[in-house]
Amino acid sequence: MVANDRPLTRREAKAITRQRLLDAALQILDDEGESGLSTTNITRRAGIAQSSFYVHFEDVNELLHELVDHLAQERDRTTRKARRLAGSAPGDRERLRDTFRIPLLDLVAHPHILRLLLRSRYEPSSPLGAWSRSIVESSEEQLVRDLVAAGAPYDTDEQRRRLDMYAEGVVALVEAFALGHVEGRYPDVEEVVDMLMAFARVTPRRTATAP
Amino acid sequence: MVANDRPLTRREAKAITRQRLLDAALQILDDEGESGLSTTNITRRAGIAQSSFYVHFEDVNELLHELVDHLAQERDRTTRKARRLAGSAPGDRERLRDTFRIPLLDLVAHPHILRLLLRSRYEPSSPLGAWSRSIVESSEEQLVRDLVAAGAPYDTDEQRRRLDMYAEGVVALVEAFALGHVEGRYPDVEEVVDMLMAFARVTPRRTATAP
Repeated sequence: MVANDRPLTRREAKAITRQRLLDAALQILDDEGESGLSTTNITRRAGIAQSSFYVHFEDVNELLHELVDHLAQERDRTTRKARRLAGSAPGDRERLRDTFRIPLLDLVAHPHILRLLLRSRYEPSSPLGAWSRSIVESSEEQLVRDLVAAGAPYDTDEQRRRLDMYAEGVVALVEAFALGHVEGRYPDVEEVVDMLMAFARVTPRRTATAP
Repeated sequence: MVANDRPLTRREAKAITRQRLLDAALQILDDEGESGLSTTNITRRAGIAQSSFYVHFEDVNELLHELVDHLAQERDRTTRKARRLAGSAPGDRERLRDTFRIPLLDLVAHPHILRLLLRSRYEPSSPLGAWSRSIVESSEEQLVRDLVAAGAPYDTDEQRRRLDMYAEGVVALVEAFALGHVEGRYPDVEEVVDMLMAFARVTPRRTATAP
């Protein structure tokens, strides 16, 4: 809510309009999927004149990019926080489950965006593909950093490859099961978390020395 | 080689031409990727008149479909065989490693086909997408059947969901690491097999009861 005591500055008003456009686009994505994402639809839903769309974004792709980037950064942030909490309470199983539950719930909250990310991942030369890959890579790098901070070995080339591979595997599993959940195969999120916990039980420390 | 004592029947000659077209298409895919797949290119490489292409296939897509289906069936067949051998020699670690090494080596043998399968997987309404999903689903179902044959519980709805999820996870990991290998991130196949063994150590039996 905006304070009543003084009018919005130009900058505040602009930020609010921009956010309304982003919120409207997310609602449209969730309701209708990508096909609904036109400037007409977005500005109508946001209650803003269509012409002012271009004050904020060059085109729908730029808006989509910002929207998905923002969601990914939020997901990485809340996941990191869950990992810190789990690290500070060793043996607390619920906190450990949160480190999988939180990114999973976040991915399944917006099925159209999840599908968009997965679909574009393998497009070789599209900007959307490069961007989707950079999102998944930054999640993997974040997981590696958190594991190293928690004591996983990352000194030799082999240790680095193994930890990178572990992180890539965990992220791939979270994505695959998130898709399975939104497609109705795994309706119970807690069962998905059980399975992620079981797969990831391979601690990087053990992995790096075994087998 | 063809026997010299009697000429090819019409049917034999037709089968040979068809196989030459398939072999030529696979070579082109491996050398140049999908963009090289034209009837002109395929028939030239196969040493066959371009017009006769259509005696065997309706179009390039039909040929591609048959080629990739055939490779997937071969991969499922050799993987099943490895699982049977591992099952008949409990404790033989090399045979267990083969159950991951064999599908992995098969996927990395044809990087363009691997990318094609991954890219089309999430295309919602394309025939290629439906077909790519059916390939991965049949690998998952095969793994589930093999695990059930080896004693994994599959009686209750929950046990079925868990085993299905486990199989989907394993297949997703094999694909993700196969792509990581062809992209040069994980050059050592044996390290990839180590990691797959570590992740999959979660036996379905333990998973179905824990945690």
